[in-house]
Amino acid sequence: MKSRWVLLIDTVDKVGLIHLITGVLHQHNINIDLNSEYVDKARNLFFMRSEIEGAFDAEAVLSQLHQIIPSAHVELKPVAKKNIVVLVTKESHAIGDLLIKHQFDALNANLLAVIGNHDVLQSLVEKFDIPFHHVSHEDLSRAQHEAAVQAVIAQYQPDYLVLAKYMRILSPQFVGAHADKIINIHHSFLPAFIGANPYKQAFERGVKIIGATAHFVNNDLDEGPIICQKVIPVDHSDSWQQMASKGRDVERSVLANALQLVFADQVFVSGNKTVVL
Amino acid sequence: MKSRWVLLIDTVDKVGLIHLITGVLHQHNINIDLNSEYVDKARNLFFMRSEIEGAFDAEAVLSQLHQIIPSAHVELKPVAKKNIVVLVTKESHAIGDLLIKHQFDALNANLLAVIGNHDVLQSLVEKFDIPFHHVSHEDLSRAQHEAAVQAVIAQYQPDYLVLAKYMRILSPQFVGAHADKIINIHHSFLPAFIGANPYKQAFERGVKIIGATAHFVNNDLDEGPIICQKVIPVDHSDSWQQMASKGRDVERSVLANALQLVFADQVFVSGNKTVVL
Amino acid sequence: MKSRWVLLIDTVDKVGLIHLITGVLHQHNINIDLNSEYVDKARNLFFMRSEIEGAFDAEAVLSQLHQIIPSAHVELKPVAKKNIVVLVTKESHAIGDLLIKHQFDALNANLLAVIGNHDVLQSLVEKFDIPFHHVSHEDLSRAQHEAAVQAVIAQYQPDYLVLAKYMRILSPQFVGAHADKIINIHHSFLPAFIGANPYKQAFERGVKIIGATAHFVNNDLDEGPIICQKVIPVDHSDSWQQMASKGRDVERSVLANALQLVFADQVFVSGNKTVVL
Amino acid sequence: MKSRWVLLIDTVDKVGLIHLITGVLHQHNINIDLNSEYVDKARNLFFMRSEIEGAFDAEAVLSQLHQIIPSAHVELKPVAKKNIVVLVTKESHAIGDLLIKHQFDALNANLLAVIGNHDVLQSLVEKFDIPFHHVSHEDLSRAQHEAAVQAVIAQYQPDYLVLAKYMRILSPQFVGAHADKIINIHHSFLPAFIGANPYKQAFERGVKIIGATAHFVNNDLDEGPIICQKVIPVDHSDSWQQMASKGRDVERSVLANALQLVFADQVFVSGNKTVVL
Repeated sequence: MKSRWVLLIDTVDKVGLIHLITGVLHQHNINIDLNSEYVDKARNLFFMRSEIEGAFDAEAVLSQLHQIIPSAHVELKPVAKKNIVVLVTKESHAIGDLLIKHQFDALNANLLAVIGNHDVLQSLVEKFDIPFHHVSHEDLSRAQHEAAVQAVIAQYQPDYLVLAKYMRILSPQFVGAHADKIINIHHSFLPAFIGANPYKQAFERGVKIIGATAHFVNNDLDEGPIICQKVIPVDHSDSWQQMASKGRDVERSVLANALQLVFADQVFVSGNKTVVL
Repeated sequence: MKSRWVLLIDTVDKVGLIHLITGVLHQHNINIDLNSEYVDKARNLFFMRSEIEGAFDAEAVLSQLHQIIPSAHVELKPVAKKNIVVLVTKESHAIGDLLIKHQFDALNANLLAVIGNHDVLQSLVEKFDIPFHHVSHEDLSRAQHEAAVQAVIAQYQPDYLVLAKYMRILSPQFVGAHADKIINIHHSFLPAFIGANPYKQAFERGVKIIGATAHFVNNDLDEGPIICQKVIPVDHSDSWQQMASKGRDVERSVLANALQLVFADQVFVSGNKTVVL
Repeated sequence: MKSRWVLLIDTVDKVGLIHLITGVLHQHNINIDLNSEYVDKARNLFFMRSEIEGAFDAEAVLSQLHQIIPSAHVELKPVAKKNIVVLVTKESHAIGDLLIKHQFDALNANLLAVIGNHDVLQSLVEKFDIPFHHVSHEDLSRAQHEAAVQAVIAQYQPDYLVLAKYMRILSPQFVGAHADKIINIHHSFLPAFIGANPYKQAFERGVKIIGATAHFVNNDLDEGPIICQKVIPVDHSDSWQQMASKGRDVERSVLANALQLVFADQVFVSGNKTVVL
Repeated sequence: MKSRWVLLIDTVDKVGLIHLITGVLHQHNINIDLNSEYVDKARNLFFMRSEIEGAFDAEAVLSQLHQIIPSAHVELKPVAKKNIVVLVTKESHAIGDLLIKHQFDALNANLLAVIGNHDVLQSLVEKFDIPFHHVSHEDLSRAQHEAAVQAVIAQYQPDYLVLAKYMRILSPQFVGAHADKIINIHHSFLPAFIGANPYKQAFERGVKIIGATAHFVNNDLDEGPIICQKVIPVDHSDSWQQMASKGRDVERSVLANALQLVFADQVFVSGNKTVVL
């Protein structure tokens, strides 16, 4: 029976790679529906993403690909919705958008659960019949709170964690346990205005454009690989509260774009950057 | 001796094309530096653009490619500057930008000559030691004027004609003689505001955004394949003259983008659309 | 007791208007918090919007303003949330955004009810405890259907009707009954692609940018005064379905912007244009 | 005889200012063509810009305005082209654009002279019959070099200095001698990527958008009041050299926008911010 897969290859570049790889696919009667490659010459890296279709033995294909390019990082994923858990604090715009999209099957993901360190959003989430877990951080150390959050996550075994305006800094332990699997939306045009209250920082600097950045989380605050960014104009008449209000629309839109790319397996993480094919 | 080429293939899609094509390249020890494909599923068309390098017999490569995909449109072009002739009327911003870029080797083209139906821009063009041909349309029929323009063009044998705010409509005969080789900048966000004075039309409609469109010219006014488009915000306080003034910056920028893509052989014309790889 | 108001004046321009008007405000000990004027010289029209504060007799202020500028259109509105009724068909993104914003008090409006000519969105709307009225158009003439819709609207006496992807054309009678009070979101960058399926039209034309337009509704289809517009880039690889999917984010964002401006009494309708102060 | 002026007022806010100021204008039979005010509530500051017309005694108007608002900063400037001197290093795109615009009377300024610390741009500038002064910094201390530059500037008595990719840091003495009169274009979206080679910094960070910033120069590197900013998308496939190439178009465009605003007396400098009316 035919099925659709995404093939992701990330390796050191060498002559003839495309021919070699497509040769393996050809042998297995696999049809390439969509194919993109990128060669990073400065770092001599090769990236390839193919949407393929056929009735084939995935194990055999993988093993043959490993034989011809032994050092490559190869993934063969069936085209399917990702399973996600979303972390929130108090702001409704990002999670609200995800809930509406999920309800009308426009998210390309199964939203398994929402975890909040406050309970402000509980009733909203439950309107959509999604479990909400209130894991308060009060009276807990960071380690204790993260252990409690991890315990909830463990129940769901998600493919990705989405931080939809989750306003707590994650420890290296937490991040390490979900390497390249945590997507955050930061409310500034990174690397400008790292850290707390970027809209206030932007207001004080007198910038004429503000933005938002979706990125994978790593251990340096707001320093992870950037997936996408978007901006809007502001002017002298915008208070920082008005910037924050205008910015919410950009945050939501950038997060939605980033999730669409990640859930379609279009994003490679490579060092502190992303390659989007 | 090694040289760099761009290989462009445009054909009906079938299974295994990439493997077949890269096989031919492999045989000739050609290195693929950059490769992009696109499959238009609705029309079952395959497009491929490769930047390749090697010491090979171009005729042999072409003939082998024709053997394996007989119906394909294949081009193999050495990486080189294009030769261009620019047509102008009275406005200075688009030609001015091309002259400055050309002077500082940032145009990726040899600007062989400028033809104007007015002589307003003659002294500007000649400052840059580029020949200016004043071919007035006064007292001439369209056919007579175009014949005179064609005679000048014929001296230069350009790869492309660039209409840098050339404000005359070209006849089907003229366009047919330079199929897919004439690039125009239209001062609206097509298909809105086709025809004369689009800024006045935009003002009268009360739009909040204006734009410009670079496109190949075909026989329907402002209907040729679009290469790129760009917009800027306007508001109720902009007169149509102010829209025109703001729009000039967009026109120049869009034309520059389009030429960069075309001169790098990144643009396929396919029906009334472009595929940009 | 002090209260906040918006003063809107729209009149034929003449020398000294600002001094005259601010003189009246001064006499009543009214404080001007924010003031904007615009003079449309081509049409000799004067527009002024002031956010004012004080403990004053609104009737007396209005009557004095009418004395000094008798032909002016003057409105004095307390700063308050608008009452709205939303009309929908089947698409969830625009109404979904309004519901979330309303729930978290970010809409600056009381969403009194939603009317749908289909019932697809009923359960979503009711999750938020907003009444949903299913007024099917099946087996009804346009006049009959509109009468049924009007009957529902009449129960709520809204300040504005919002068409959140309401896919039916309204009759001149209906529009006339709510002059300058109906706000629509059209899924194209007007005046390009008026009418049905603009994304398909955009795809077929091969444009490189798509957009959305929020406008007041008048009797010419998609020809009413434009409030705001926004665009996003697309390319040859986007099917019209993908354009539609990307476009939804722009539609939602443009509608949200337009409503924010209208609900804050920042938008004058003047002929077929808007003046936004 | 009637003439046109711009009136700029910048003062501590108090009730009734607009009425007071327009009263003075009224008394002198001055017609207000265009009027904008802005109140910065956080700092309690009032800004007003009026385009006025009439046959009046400017000294008398100024003195009366000073009487009614003694602490205000008031300027009354005839509508006229500004006189400018441009400083350059080696890059041609920004100065090239200014030269073309100046030649065709689209700059709203008299370009009196260009000073370069290299002579690369001399022949370009002289094509346009503008004096070029090569003031090399070689073998000179910063103080000596700046003294030489100042000596050239002193010959021209310009209203503004424009740094069109002038790649030298100016001393506090130099900046202090031209307070709020030096406009710079920085090739990043400030405050991101302050300092040297921002495109390389942007590339290394893996951002998805790059930009440019026009600002007044003060004594903190790249920290002066921002006039305008603009951005363009980039992706993983752009080398930093390609980012630089794409960025040039944005730099030129942002600088042109900023100069248009400044030369029309639309920009107030207030602390480390601008107010643009």
